[in-house]
Amino acid sequence: MGEANENARWQGGTGTRRPRVVIVGGGFAGINAAEALGKLSVDVTLVDRRNHHTFQPLLYQVALAVLSPAQIAQPIRTILRRYSNIEVLMDEVMGIDTGGRSLALASGARLGYDYLVLATGATHSYLGHDEWKPNAPGLKTLEDATEIRRRVLLAFELAERQMVEQGWHPPLRFVIIGGGPTGVELAGAISDIARLFLRRDFRHIDPAESEVILIEGGSRVLASFPEELSALAEKQLRKLGVVVRTGTHVTNVEAGWIMMGEERIDAAVVLWAAGVAASPLGRMLGVEVTKRGAVPVNAELNPQGLREVFVCGDLAHFEQDGHAVPGVAQPAMQMGRHAARLIAADLAGRPRPGFRYFDKGDMATIGRLAAVAKIEWPFKARWGGFVAWITWLVVHIYFLIGFRNRLGILTSWAWTYFTFSDSARLITGDQTLPGWQKKIDASGKPPSTGE
Amino acid sequence: MGEANENARWQGGTGTRRPRVVIVGGGFAGINAAEALGKLSVDVTLVDRRNHHTFQPLLYQVALAVLSPAQIAQPIRTILRRYSNIEVLMDEVMGIDTGGRSLALASGARLGYDYLVLATGATHSYLGHDEWKPNAPGLKTLEDATEIRRRVLLAFELAERQMVEQGWHPPLRFVIIGGGPTGVELAGAISDIARLFLRRDFRHIDPAESEVILIEGGSRVLASFPEELSALAEKQLRKLGVVVRTGTHVTNVEAGWIMMGEERIDAAVVLWAAGVAASPLGRMLGVEVTKRGAVPVNAELNPQGLREVFVCGDLAHFEQDGHAVPGVAQPAMQMGRHAARLIAADLAGRPRPGFRYFDKGDMATIGRLAAVAKIEWPFKARWGGFVAWITWLVVHIYFLIGFRNRLGILTSWAWTYFTFSDSARLITGDQTLPGWQKKIDASGKPPSTGE
Repeated sequence: MGEANENARWQGGTGTRRPRVVIVGGGFAGINAAEALGKLSVDVTLVDRRNHHTFQPLLYQVALAVLSPAQIAQPIRTILRRYSNIEVLMDEVMGIDTGGRSLALASGARLGYDYLVLATGATHSYLGHDEWKPNAPGLKTLEDATEIRRRVLLAFELAERQMVEQGWHPPLRFVIIGGGPTGVELAGAISDIARLFLRRDFRHIDPAESEVILIEGGSRVLASFPEELSALAEKQLRKLGVVVRTGTHVTNVEAGWIMMGEERIDAAVVLWAAGVAASPLGRMLGVEVTKRGAVPVNAELNPQGLREVFVCGDLAHFEQDGHAVPGVAQPAMQMGRHAARLIAADLAGRPRPGFRYFDKGDMATIGRLAAVAKIEWPFKARWGGFVAWITWLVVHIYFLIGFRNRLGILTSWAWTYFTFSDSARLITGDQTLPGWQKKIDASGKPPSTGE
Repeated sequence: MGEANENARWQGGTGTRRPRVVIVGGGFAGINAAEALGKLSVDVTLVDRRNHHTFQPLLYQVALAVLSPAQIAQPIRTILRRYSNIEVLMDEVMGIDTGGRSLALASGARLGYDYLVLATGATHSYLGHDEWKPNAPGLKTLEDATEIRRRVLLAFELAERQMVEQGWHPPLRFVIIGGGPTGVELAGAISDIARLFLRRDFRHIDPAESEVILIEGGSRVLASFPEELSALAEKQLRKLGVVVRTGTHVTNVEAGWIMMGEERIDAAVVLWAAGVAASPLGRMLGVEVTKRGAVPVNAELNPQGLREVFVCGDLAHFEQDGHAVPGVAQPAMQMGRHAARLIAADLAGRPRPGFRYFDKGDMATIGRLAAVAKIEWPFKARWGGFVAWITWLVVHIYFLIGFRNRLGILTSWAWTYFTFSDSARLITGDQTLPGWQKKIDASGKPPSTGE
């Protein structure tokens, strides 16, 4: 297909052409932009290389086998199907031509735009040590979550097998690197499933004897929260048996052990919750980006000199009152909706309104019945413990996309917490336990390895 | 660990040693054997290389995105945790020493037994053409099901993308090779999801225009059913738009097309539901096996000359009234329970009862609201259409392990069928669409491929 055809398609045949808005990324920012644009007189194409939107704040519950992937994810085209002016394209953006206002796609096609909403988010960064990645997976996608689930559950299976076959097992130790919300939630949840849920399933090991170590380079966990809540979170983690080590830097991550300076810790599973890097698409705009690859934007969410491009969510670096807006769900949703408002202003010939992040607060759970909550709206409060956890529960259920998911998740949680029983504890993918070094099949040939 | 220690563990220290029963395989036969042995005065070890039991009759619904993996699978140790005399070991059997009564495990350990229940089932066979496997996945495990789901959903995504980018797409054709129950159920279900569920999600393709072709080498589909039901099934399939080609042999399967003699058919997705091969463990017993690798057993479920070994389920070849008992769930469950009965007879010093398969009937669904049912008990009947489908529904819900799963599946079905909306349509794993041949990242380097 040549350029001519492409242009014909994208620019329509008649004189009454509607602006084409291309949204790249189906996360919180992209979906919120699309839903707001669905009500405007524009044609929208949402491009994502995945077919589903993931409710990232609950990913850790998939990683720890409380919820199933389908409970926190939904196909993007299903979410948006009520908007007849929106089409969804599963493709990957390989380049951005800001001069020609078009995108180069992995399929080879070009996609023209009048407005571009760039919202491809962030991924984990290993701070220059990408070789640590296979030894310490991070948590950004459903695949990451099932991989972590696989590793954690296999660690318990291996220890049980070692007890049966050898009469002993090495310490069942889980190390989480990074004391932000994800690290804190993973640490609390691992401690919980070990003590509460797995205890009744094993004959020879006591999962409650497992150790969870949370390592943070800074001076406190949850650095983005007020100090009093960091202290409360540490206290609650310790109550769950989690060892919290702040001011500690990891210097090497190998399969089965980590180094912190001269100190070595062996671990059954190491998880990475430390660094964040913005999506590589930010660099394709041809503007200056921050150290972590985010795109600085003005109050109209534009990168420098690009009025028709809006960068939203974790990919954007937006400063307000001297601080960068954090890379969490709330600002992403607000930016996505604001991008639609900016386009609506252009269509109506009105001046563009400036973006201002409205901070309703922030929360992190610590295990099953505790959390910390920094509430900014509708009133100001700093809560810890059970009250904060109930607040977390209500807010997360309320924001989950799709009624069925809400109901399903409530049922799952109730079922899991009352019966300590769960079907989500499936090990899928590679089933090879450590120590299955020399597998042979009936024919005597060694099998191909899964990884 | 030396042999001496192993024996100490397995043979106990006292004179009142209870017999040790080792069950290999956590499918229908293994789980039913374990549950019956849980009530006897024996020590049981169930070994499986996976951590979960899968309700295989509903796997095709996971493959076609109606149900989620966690709804039809459950960890084996959770199913069996109420029996304190049963331990579950996640390990793989690499060899059987029938003389020394012990198993060699992938971990390197040896596991002694007094009684061995071998129930490792069957897998698909490509009839000597293993090179077809990557081009036509079969359906035996949860991973198979999510792989088929991935391929089917990606085919629709690709066609939509081709419409957007090129204005046309090649025929959206699905070929299923093998007209047994799995093939018939897959064909009916693909036709259903295309016509009913996906239709509202796409803007540019009409999923209802997809073609489903079911290829069977024999003269009729569902050869294990009475002829009248085969004819009825074909009629119902045709009503769903499925092209049924009997007496047709596939001679080659490549990526994107198949050959049947001189005839070539291009296909977006090819699925394999033709051959079945027994697990390789049957060959480790040192007895004669059938062509498909099954182990002939007598009425006490013993392979020739091995009174303390019981082979159950799809791995067993048991003849009754001149016919081999079919490799489906019912006989597997009955054999598993019977193995426990044989051990109980030994313990009580009673003569061993002979096994007899009690055939309650067989069923296969054809899409959403039709099925064929051959009912043998509690009355004899041959049903087709909606009545058979309701019967199928009741029987499958009744036999699903775990109340929560039953409820969850009923809710999912009701939700899916009334709203045509579903969250289970997630594409996970490799997200690469055909045609993304040359992917580059921001740095200009080609990425590693997912497969």
